[in-house]
Amino acid sequence: MDKVKTEVLYGIHPVFEALSAGRREIRQIFHVKDNSPHGRLKDVVLLAEKLNIPVKKIMQKELETFTGTKQHQNIGASVSRYPLVDLEGIIRKENKKSEDGFLLLLDNIIDPHNLGALVRTALCVGINGIIITKDRSAAPTPAVSKVSAGALEHVYMACVTNMVQAIKMLKKEGYWIAGTDIKAKTSLFSSSLTGPLAIAIGGEEKGLRPLVKKNCDFLVSIPQSVMINSLNASASGAVVMYEAFRQRQFIITKKGSNL
Amino acid sequence: MDKVKTEVLYGIHPVFEALSAGRREIRQIFHVKDNSPHGRLKDVVLLAEKLNIPVKKIMQKELETFTGTKQHQNIGASVSRYPLVDLEGIIRKENKKSEDGFLLLLDNIIDPHNLGALVRTALCVGINGIIITKDRSAAPTPAVSKVSAGALEHVYMACVTNMVQAIKMLKKEGYWIAGTDIKAKTSLFSSSLTGPLAIAIGGEEKGLRPLVKKNCDFLVSIPQSVMINSLNASASGAVVMYEAFRQRQFIITKKGSNL
Repeated sequence: MDKVKTEVLYGIHPVFEALSAGRREIRQIFHVKDNSPHGRLKDVVLLAEKLNIPVKKIMQKELETFTGTKQHQNIGASVSRYPLVDLEGIIRKENKKSEDGFLLLLDNIIDPHNLGALVRTALCVGINGIIITKDRSAAPTPAVSKVSAGALEHVYMACVTNMVQAIKMLKKEGYWIAGTDIKAKTSLFSSSLTGPLAIAIGGEEKGLRPLVKKNCDFLVSIPQSVMINSLNASASGAVVMYEAFRQRQFIITKKGSNL
Repeated sequence: MDKVKTEVLYGIHPVFEALSAGRREIRQIFHVKDNSPHGRLKDVVLLAEKLNIPVKKIMQKELETFTGTKQHQNIGASVSRYPLVDLEGIIRKENKKSEDGFLLLLDNIIDPHNLGALVRTALCVGINGIIITKDRSAAPTPAVSKVSAGALEHVYMACVTNMVQAIKMLKKEGYWIAGTDIKAKTSLFSSSLTGPLAIAIGGEEKGLRPLVKKNCDFLVSIPQSVMINSLNASASGAVVMYEAFRQRQFIITKKGSNL
């Protein structure tokens, strides 16, 4: 991933959000020639022109070849690769911010759709940093940016070799690590999720790996009415992140029952 | 959709759950010839044999042609079409059950992935019936059953021509209709979601249609930390359904503040 110096973003949201976030170098914007830009597409082209980024009209077929997909929504952009940060960077950034650190640890999420959906929800609840694993994980590709509706362009993401080491470092910095586990005895809704917190979500098939689970400070399960089925990874993530967000926003006392 | 008398389910979960639920006629099970069934695949074959359903071994390529996809996980089933119920059926079923009616109204959800994910979450929280619209909506296809990990086989789903009429009928039966709207002034987390309740979720692009919105008893918004982006339809649905589930499970008083 590190060797790719240029990526091709596609879709209205990813290109617009990359322009707005200003974290990637945007080399050139391409849009479909026989399509007079209107609505959101026009907004993107206008923003690019305002930022003095070259805008080129090309044929539909060329754009399809350039982006490698039919999901391009008539726009593509040649950009520098996704600006990953390092874990230390996320921690340093957080340390400036009192007690509100709120991180998401993704332990082997392999489906780009789930990664994109989780990133999108994370941005909505104000997660300050997302930590993914280097191996056996979906990477922050243009496809993920598309699924995230461009949210990827705004979040801070670090990619670590060893999630357990990352957890140990976060603990030293005062974070509580809350893991999700379908077998945990404590319900999500009976857990305190305020203060400096990192939520750990496991991969689609096996959940959190045993060593990661063991290194969490506590494990919570998402209650279910019937046990025929379980939530998918992105729905689990949404439910846990929003319960933490609810507690952090709506519950004034930081100790005691959260019900 | 009514004219299709046979459908082809594929994937381990959909086939297993269709066998377990016993709501479809399962005509024949097909699995890959050179694949000696083990693990979950074996469970499905054993269950089918126990139920005296013919099991046939075919070649990988044949199964791919038969199911129309590479996502078949080595198993397919020829089944009767999805057993939709009617709205009156859902209401009659609910009326036997005291005050716990808990329904989901999907107003023009067009992406089968979102429909499948919403169905999966709905089963987890114990939604008693899902009402979808006939036009401009994803239908309960085998692909949706696959995305829902077979949850579709267990839920009760009605398909209505007119969502506003359905809402009016539900109101007469004592349901409260809670619509989700990004612009609503009342936060989801400040709303009472206990008692007989139908949650209305709008389509991916425009949310609830104006007339549907107008006919809701109240509208709630899902709070966000930043407004750069918004949740996708299936994440919104998960957050709203789980907040209702939390209140219905964990909050004893049915009136007053839920915080």
